[in-house]
Amino acid sequence: MPDAVTTDLSQQMATIGRRARAAASVLATTTGAERASGLIAAADAIEADAARIAAANAEDLARAGDLSASLRDRLALSPKGIAAMAAGIREIAAQPDPVGESVERWTRPNGLNFEKVRVPLGVIGIIYESRPNVTADAGALSVKSGNAAILRGGSESAASSAAILQAIRRGLASAGLPMDAVQGLPTTDRAAVGIMLTMSDAIDLIIPRGGKGLIARVQSESRVPVLAHLDGNCHVYVHASADLAMAATVLQNAKLRRTSVCGAAESLLVDADCAATALPQLIPMLLDAGCAVRGDALVQAIDRRVTAATEQDWSTEYLEPTISAAVVPDLDAAIAWVNRYGSHHTDAIIANDPVAAEAFLNGVDSAIVLVNASTQFADGGEFGFGAEIGISTGRLHARGPVGARELTTTKYKVRGTGQVRP
Amino acid sequence: MPDAVTTDLSQQMATIGRRARAAASVLATTTGAERASGLIAAADAIEADAARIAAANAEDLARAGDLSASLRDRLALSPKGIAAMAAGIREIAAQPDPVGESVERWTRPNGLNFEKVRVPLGVIGIIYESRPNVTADAGALSVKSGNAAILRGGSESAASSAAILQAIRRGLASAGLPMDAVQGLPTTDRAAVGIMLTMSDAIDLIIPRGGKGLIARVQSESRVPVLAHLDGNCHVYVHASADLAMAATVLQNAKLRRTSVCGAAESLLVDADCAATALPQLIPMLLDAGCAVRGDALVQAIDRRVTAATEQDWSTEYLEPTISAAVVPDLDAAIAWVNRYGSHHTDAIIANDPVAAEAFLNGVDSAIVLVNASTQFADGGEFGFGAEIGISTGRLHARGPVGARELTTTKYKVRGTGQVRP
Repeated sequence: MPDAVTTDLSQQMATIGRRARAAASVLATTTGAERASGLIAAADAIEADAARIAAANAEDLARAGDLSASLRDRLALSPKGIAAMAAGIREIAAQPDPVGESVERWTRPNGLNFEKVRVPLGVIGIIYESRPNVTADAGALSVKSGNAAILRGGSESAASSAAILQAIRRGLASAGLPMDAVQGLPTTDRAAVGIMLTMSDAIDLIIPRGGKGLIARVQSESRVPVLAHLDGNCHVYVHASADLAMAATVLQNAKLRRTSVCGAAESLLVDADCAATALPQLIPMLLDAGCAVRGDALVQAIDRRVTAATEQDWSTEYLEPTISAAVVPDLDAAIAWVNRYGSHHTDAIIANDPVAAEAFLNGVDSAIVLVNASTQFADGGEFGFGAEIGISTGRLHARGPVGARELTTTKYKVRGTGQVRP
Repeated sequence: MPDAVTTDLSQQMATIGRRARAAASVLATTTGAERASGLIAAADAIEADAARIAAANAEDLARAGDLSASLRDRLALSPKGIAAMAAGIREIAAQPDPVGESVERWTRPNGLNFEKVRVPLGVIGIIYESRPNVTADAGALSVKSGNAAILRGGSESAASSAAILQAIRRGLASAGLPMDAVQGLPTTDRAAVGIMLTMSDAIDLIIPRGGKGLIARVQSESRVPVLAHLDGNCHVYVHASADLAMAATVLQNAKLRRTSVCGAAESLLVDADCAATALPQLIPMLLDAGCAVRGDALVQAIDRRVTAATEQDWSTEYLEPTISAAVVPDLDAAIAWVNRYGSHHTDAIIANDPVAAEAFLNGVDSAIVLVNASTQFADGGEFGFGAEIGISTGRLHARGPVGARELTTTKYKVRGTGQVRP
């Protein structure tokens, strides 16, 4: 029998769901200009509330005494960070409106005209880590695409997120948009997430961001469709035809520009045909730059600082200055390796041979496959999408960076002159 | 503790899953021409096996002694029906190849070239009613789009489906494609479906077709993403600006051309501004054509053969010669009615006023919205998709007719010249 607290929380969640659905109905009738105005007003409100948001963030930081440096770094909001959030929302407001976009149009021999157009998905539930700025990004991308959002940020950032949410809601309302276009949860209690995952009538899509544990829980529990953002075990494969200077530059960037992002390279594959020249250039370069290397026997032979890789290393996303490295016999073996050990996120080949490059592009089964470019381009902004909620590693609905357009569905408009079906 | 039979079935299902995954890997490397040749060979094999398929169908029919006439009708395969299956596969083979299709291509200021291309989804599980021809259609559409299929048809058609499957597999193999590109289940036991719904490593997408009970079960149990085909409670709304002769022709076709299809109209809405002239033309026309009418008070007043509609009628998909009918105050009320009682499948307006028509197209939240055309055009073939697995009523991944292209996902190919991310 559910206890009183659970029942109360269920009722609160049901109310949030109904309000989101109602807000989504209103948003669906707004123009892109109206939604853009609402977002600009939300950005203004965040700037106006900067002191209040900073105070809330200080409260979160004080409570989160024993966080790791990197978690603390994600959680902290400087005055510059608050200004950047507002600027980010304005950028999203300035992007082209995905809603109403005509994807395709054709006429059949019977004269019926078919048009496929983008429309909002409806209500999106977003579950994310303790990064207050995601509250702004995720809320803004949802409103941009005509959707209502139910946001559940990490508990360590609860006060910061609530302050940001309050500003966004006031901004939207001041521009005549429904305040409930963006809502938070009434509690950081995990039970609320559990209820959220059952609300298939109220929520059309759940987007989980964060650790593997969270995403696995969401995928196994959710009765609502899930757009998952899994890990990025990204590879850089140096083909025999590679320009080795380019390989070194791209590899260094892919691994070390930022090691904590999902597009960071985690594994280096070197073709046997160029290993004798490539390894002595690439491996000491990585080591000298402060990157630990875990290699197979051939890689270990290059430099005594290389440690032995275990089978587990080949499928590990380190998110730190560590890389696994192996020599592969040829292009086909490289493709098979990436498909076996990789996470179908983002992988790159360095090659001057266009045939090899195209074979890698076709053969590697990942959301993003690059030739002669850093895996760190795995980012909606770098794709030109303006902003992203994350990189989808699922195969359904959206694969790769998820921007405002990926938060839409489509409908068919069919225009006739009295046609009947024979 | 699982008993021996369940364990055995689980192992058999796991084997099917592994074979499907292996077949999908091979299919992913085939050209469209190779897959088309395989499909033509499968069509040839179905024709060569016509007698064997007919005998299997006779066996199914003999066993299914107490089926309703309509179920029996779906189950029965005439020689003409077998030839039509083969012809259907050849048509799918002749359609353009969706795999490798370049959806979009652009270059960023840094010179990186982005291309979004279609690739196969992987492995698709299709659960359907006792219609043997779906075995051929679903298998062919899967192979066309480079996917492996695991097919589970209704138990009444087990022998027919197995015979069709055997022919298709032999045909594919004769053309050098993997036989396991199309597999059936080892048993019609429902437990096998239960296991199938848990196989999220082996299956990328489940498509359930059939009754509400089946689809609800799949949606609530499945750990694999589901592309659902729910009911079609389709509306025809006659606007005040309608050409009433056109309204009569379209309505008759929408309701009565075939009453058992999901695109059949189930509800008529008439605008109050034309009710006085429209109802006396439309209601007796339907009644005289053998269609039962369940109406509100105004509709009942037109003809004593009209019976009173209950609240339940407004949301009922009859799939028989019965229609609900109501008068609505205006266009906005019609849109609100369709969004409230409809099933977001297919709805039509009859109107000469283009402003009203566009408002209906925009306001009705359905997969397919038509102006001045029959709802029975809700069909992949009529859209020009060649064939379809069904009409998706979900909002994720694909909405509306699901043809070969909707059975693909995309990947990004990014081509650079050594770019690194600043």
